[in-house]
Amino acid sequence: MRKKIAILGSTGSIGTQTLDVIARHADRFSVVSLAAGSRIATLVEQSKRFDPAIVSCARQSDIAALRAQLPHSTRVLAGAEGLLAVAAESGADVVVAATDGAVSFDAVFAAVERGIRIAVANKELIVAAGELFVAAARRSGAEIVPVDSEHSALFQCLAGEPGDRIGTLVLTASGGPFWDWDRARIANASLEDALRHPTWQMGTKNTVDSASLMNKGLEVIEASRLFGVPGDRIEVLVHRTSVAHGFVVFSDGNVKAQLASPDMRLPIGYALAYPDRLDGRVRISALEALGAKADDALARLEFRPPDLERFPCLGLAYAALRRGGVAPAVLSAANEIAVDAFVRGEIRFGAIPDIVAAALDAAPDEPLSLVSVRAADGHARELARSAVEARSMAQAK
Amino acid sequence: MRKKIAILGSTGSIGTQTLDVIARHADRFSVVSLAAGSRIATLVEQSKRFDPAIVSCARQSDIAALRAQLPHSTRVLAGAEGLLAVAAESGADVVVAATDGAVSFDAVFAAVERGIRIAVANKELIVAAGELFVAAARRSGAEIVPVDSEHSALFQCLAGEPGDRIGTLVLTASGGPFWDWDRARIANASLEDALRHPTWQMGTKNTVDSASLMNKGLEVIEASRLFGVPGDRIEVLVHRTSVAHGFVVFSDGNVKAQLASPDMRLPIGYALAYPDRLDGRVRISALEALGAKADDALARLEFRPPDLERFPCLGLAYAALRRGGVAPAVLSAANEIAVDAFVRGEIRFGAIPDIVAAALDAAPDEPLSLVSVRAADGHARELARSAVEARSMAQAK
Repeated sequence: MRKKIAILGSTGSIGTQTLDVIARHADRFSVVSLAAGSRIATLVEQSKRFDPAIVSCARQSDIAALRAQLPHSTRVLAGAEGLLAVAAESGADVVVAATDGAVSFDAVFAAVERGIRIAVANKELIVAAGELFVAAARRSGAEIVPVDSEHSALFQCLAGEPGDRIGTLVLTASGGPFWDWDRARIANASLEDALRHPTWQMGTKNTVDSASLMNKGLEVIEASRLFGVPGDRIEVLVHRTSVAHGFVVFSDGNVKAQLASPDMRLPIGYALAYPDRLDGRVRISALEALGAKADDALARLEFRPPDLERFPCLGLAYAALRRGGVAPAVLSAANEIAVDAFVRGEIRFGAIPDIVAAALDAAPDEPLSLVSVRAADGHARELARSAVEARSMAQAK
Repeated sequence: MRKKIAILGSTGSIGTQTLDVIARHADRFSVVSLAAGSRIATLVEQSKRFDPAIVSCARQSDIAALRAQLPHSTRVLAGAEGLLAVAAESGADVVVAATDGAVSFDAVFAAVERGIRIAVANKELIVAAGELFVAAARRSGAEIVPVDSEHSALFQCLAGEPGDRIGTLVLTASGGPFWDWDRARIANASLEDALRHPTWQMGTKNTVDSASLMNKGLEVIEASRLFGVPGDRIEVLVHRTSVAHGFVVFSDGNVKAQLASPDMRLPIGYALAYPDRLDGRVRISALEALGAKADDALARLEFRPPDLERFPCLGLAYAALRRGGVAPAVLSAANEIAVDAFVRGEIRFGAIPDIVAAALDAAPDEPLSLVSVRAADGHARELARSAVEARSMAQAK
């Protein structure tokens, strides 16, 4: 029996790579449903190739175009209703949650409540609502398998291990393009500078977040939620070559690490196949597995502590995690607005942490619920937008 | 309920460290039986402290001395009968097999046949009779948990993993004191030179084997037996600092590694507690876990392929593994004689691989059984002894 896969966000980077993995392992997986945003042509192409029973797009106005190009048997939907059907009514064994932002929260929660495994690549979901999400999964018995390379690394290291023997979790960070820049130079970095990521190919938002280390801060929060470990037992180490992705230091002093080439199809394949692994008939030498180039007679892995002075976003994330409640949602939302403004050229790179810090200061101390998260998210975005406008006007003068 | 532990070889390095682990975790483990060789005073001391029901020594002539110093309720035995009682008649949950050589083969097999877990630190057992041992464990359902740091590393990386998804196993090697010496210099190395091991504290035989890389060769054979992987998918990488002990490259391209400080109590504790882990309340920083000194702001791990030209013993071990049958037993036995002769100053260091190679050339092609292994072992020792004498006489001239 092939595993039935639903993808929320099928035309994005994780979505297309998921379909790539499924295509290579068509004997093990089939696609039952796809949801995408506005890339209708790509969604049509994917649907023709993988023949899902349910296809959904963001806008009602795109439904007609989709219907015209897909077989009559395909159910075509849009918006929240479509996401819900794709995630929870498609009979999927695994839902790949790969949309950005909060758009698919309800759909993913509905799937979790039905006990369906979630291969989760949606950072905001875990950062903002991770405690609710993990609690819902515990109630229903749904498995949550992370797709992010660092969390997949930790998940792989924890396979077969007792749950209460974690000492410290360690996430590695490439350190981004500004790793050896001084603070003033970082503050005035251009978008072009920020997009020069040393190892991974990612979307603009994620790449900018990698440059500020906010990406790693969000991952620290995610790790805390996914593995139930407080922030003071989660460390970040800068590892420029991105060969090792995560370490678990166990209570008995033993350490396990996971390493892999920087190819998202590896953690995606793991999340789909778990607890099995795919057979890629991969024969790589030990040195290659450790990141050495083909002709090198040496593999070298280096790890350094991050500098929170020059990368304040990482410290802000730890602060949001300590504070808990809606603070992580506020951090994530304000950062999204600030990064967007930086990408549009409205603010300097150095203003990102300032805007996030101001939003965090104003975050309400409310108990966590999907309602309070949404409200705090909306409020943080407004606050951050005002801060952007104030700075943008000041810059224009 | 505390786990009941039996130790074969309680006064050796692994035996005493096992008792150290048990003493620190007296709430989890008790000692039901101890067997040692001729260190009677130490055995008495251990027995008084841990109160085993059965105590055994090598020689019948030592029984009286033991009886005189131990409580009446303690059963005191000697020789093969004693080993058998300690291993298989003591009601142990775990037998720590930490004797050298073949002396406790029968006792360990008897325990395995009763389904008792073996924490195995006896290299010869796995090298010479590993296929029989693993087959017996499979029949009875006995667990075999390795104690050697490299095999413990691989075992830990394989916990929770599907059995048939191993791509490559990688064992690390410190490279020993002769790592950067040329072949002529190695051939004439003194015993003092050979005992300067860079990272581990071990007995003389193991330290000399580390200098020749025979140690690693024997471990390659062990890994093949324990994990059912052929030699052409087991690699060795030289890693001078002995922080990482082993890697598993999985069929899907993901890699898991195990790291730990070079302290045998870590793999021993793991073998006793498995599938749980001990809670040592260890709080080490991520950098320390990666081998950095306390004040270092950098952890660096380096890996290089070994040089089989300068370290022919490693190649001989791969050859014995390819040949199979009694060849690994012959390799191990001839090496033991050659190393012993080197330690006594009878032969040069460079003669060790020559003597082993000659014994391997003369190894019979017989099917593996405990009987054929014993015969081949004896024959190889005789052959090696003659070779030593011939060289020793030639040197004396």
